[in-house]
Amino acid sequence: MNYLLKSESSVYYECGYSCESEIFIALSDERFFITDGRYTIEAKEGVKGAEVIETKESLLESAKEILKKSAIKEIIYDPKEWSVFEFEKLKADLSLNFKAIKNFSQKRRIIKRDEEIEKIKKSVQIGAECFDRYARYLQNALGKEEFELHFDALDIFGDHGRRAISFDPIIALDHNSAKPHAHPTATPLRSDSFILLDAGVKYERYCSDRTRCSAFASDLNFDKTQHFNNPTHQKIYDIVRKAQEAAIQAIRPGVKAKEIDHAAREVIAKAGYEKAFVHSTGHGVGLDIHEEPFINRKSETIIEENMIFTVEPGIYLEDQFGVRIEDMIRVTAQGAEIL
Amino acid sequence: MNYLLKSESSVYYECGYSCESEIFIALSDERFFITDGRYTIEAKEGVKGAEVIETKESLLESAKEILKKSAIKEIIYDPKEWSVFEFEKLKADLSLNFKAIKNFSQKRRIIKRDEEIEKIKKSVQIGAECFDRYARYLQNALGKEEFELHFDALDIFGDHGRRAISFDPIIALDHNSAKPHAHPTATPLRSDSFILLDAGVKYERYCSDRTRCSAFASDLNFDKTQHFNNPTHQKIYDIVRKAQEAAIQAIRPGVKAKEIDHAAREVIAKAGYEKAFVHSTGHGVGLDIHEEPFINRKSETIIEENMIFTVEPGIYLEDQFGVRIEDMIRVTAQGAEIL
Repeated sequence: MNYLLKSESSVYYECGYSCESEIFIALSDERFFITDGRYTIEAKEGVKGAEVIETKESLLESAKEILKKSAIKEIIYDPKEWSVFEFEKLKADLSLNFKAIKNFSQKRRIIKRDEEIEKIKKSVQIGAECFDRYARYLQNALGKEEFELHFDALDIFGDHGRRAISFDPIIALDHNSAKPHAHPTATPLRSDSFILLDAGVKYERYCSDRTRCSAFASDLNFDKTQHFNNPTHQKIYDIVRKAQEAAIQAIRPGVKAKEIDHAAREVIAKAGYEKAFVHSTGHGVGLDIHEEPFINRKSETIIEENMIFTVEPGIYLEDQFGVRIEDMIRVTAQGAEIL
Repeated sequence: MNYLLKSESSVYYECGYSCESEIFIALSDERFFITDGRYTIEAKEGVKGAEVIETKESLLESAKEILKKSAIKEIIYDPKEWSVFEFEKLKADLSLNFKAIKNFSQKRRIIKRDEEIEKIKKSVQIGAECFDRYARYLQNALGKEEFELHFDALDIFGDHGRRAISFDPIIALDHNSAKPHAHPTATPLRSDSFILLDAGVKYERYCSDRTRCSAFASDLNFDKTQHFNNPTHQKIYDIVRKAQEAAIQAIRPGVKAKEIDHAAREVIAKAGYEKAFVHSTGHGVGLDIHEEPFINRKSETIIEENMIFTVEPGIYLEDQFGVRIEDMIRVTAQGAEIL
């Protein structure tokens, strides 16, 4: 099997190193890491099991040269990794069949190895500690706007610049929590605020991802068991929690991803909020924060042991508030382990 | 002229609004802003001169429907805006000629209008104030690692989360400044540190961009005139400054972009550092931080009044240090105005 990779996570997975300027080519008997002069020294130290090529003209030209010299007739590429512009340049003058496989590298990475599972567990653990730290911070943050709360989330999850985070954290108050991908606004934290926090960190490049909801209180925390003064908050929260539990119960090797999605969606639908669950139930997490398997309505992907993905149903009530509860799980031989 | 746009800056330029989920279609007599249900209300308030379409299935399907209904035979698209995967989906079943024009929207935006110039000037002014604030911060930051200095640059340029920045700031010390796109490391600020800062902010979506070098001192500043205790720092700095001045002198309507690049490169080459100037001389700045015109060795772009771009020659001495001096200029009727 011959293949061509371009995204950092894909390349890192193959050879233990990646940088901002690279193309990786795997042929049946040779593997090449192409980079430019800025990264050659680092690459030669970091790349395992592939020859480091320093390009003279451009990464694309070097890749074309290697492909021309090789005797191969077909190479796999991921059509999501390439812009039309770059791909046209790549193909020009090459008499080679480019075989498109969407999410090719993510599919290679879909079952996590033991050492990957360990790194992901550590990432989840550090993330959870940051949730606790951020809860204590919020206890004294009355009056601060989401803009500032967001920046301080970057500070806490990112350890003041010393730790990589897995994505831009979402800290959304009240109305703003009704948007699944809320951006910070000038909304201030008030004594009766509803709070949604979706955040994660990286540990040795592996991502974590978690969402919790709470309400302001002098002892506010992000435990999964929450007591809301507002009965509507409590009602919706309890439905989403039941939906998450149902989805986790549905996980075991052999089921289809869409069955897990269905288990969550059914609980929410029965409670009358089907239209308010506006996204899919989960996504794989690893070197990428969103990767295979995708747990949605249509996915026929067969679940296997040591897949790791999120389970994150939600109910979003426009102009009111939104609840999402998200954990990462690992598929075990019989079911699911919550990380 | 019919065209199709996809990036936020391109779309914002056409209709004064953009969001994370959109396709914009301009036909000779109709214009469409396609988005999904999350953004419809905001879009209807913000979009000027185009019909807002809320998609049911997907943005791509809605775009295809509009293209099918229209009687057009050709539409322009930017092959850098589309992944192979999405573009294949878009084209399928459409009997329409897709005409590729690289950087199509950037080329439309290459001459800045008066109100854009005002916004960019304001952005540059705020950015310059942040450089001063950051210089005062550094005066008391001895011992801090680049990781922390970088985070605090985000804080100062981003006004603790209240202001958008135009790109992730580069704060590089000593050896690390020899990398044009340095990432923060554990290198600490020392009493004899060489310092490079490359940062900018946004004002009403318009970007600014500036680079200055300095050395640690109790009164350190980021003025363009710098006095270094280390004679090698001073020597290299003075060459880069002369190169920048030569490039700015070369700017006027009618010259080619490559002539400006050549003016900077010639000064550096004569001083014996040609190979140490490893990037191009500048890039346009506007809604995007890097946009047309590109000021490099090969560009035949004819410079016109009210183009705005950076002039940023540099000399990078591996394992020692690197100098870059960057300002934004506006092309005037006779020459260049430094912003």
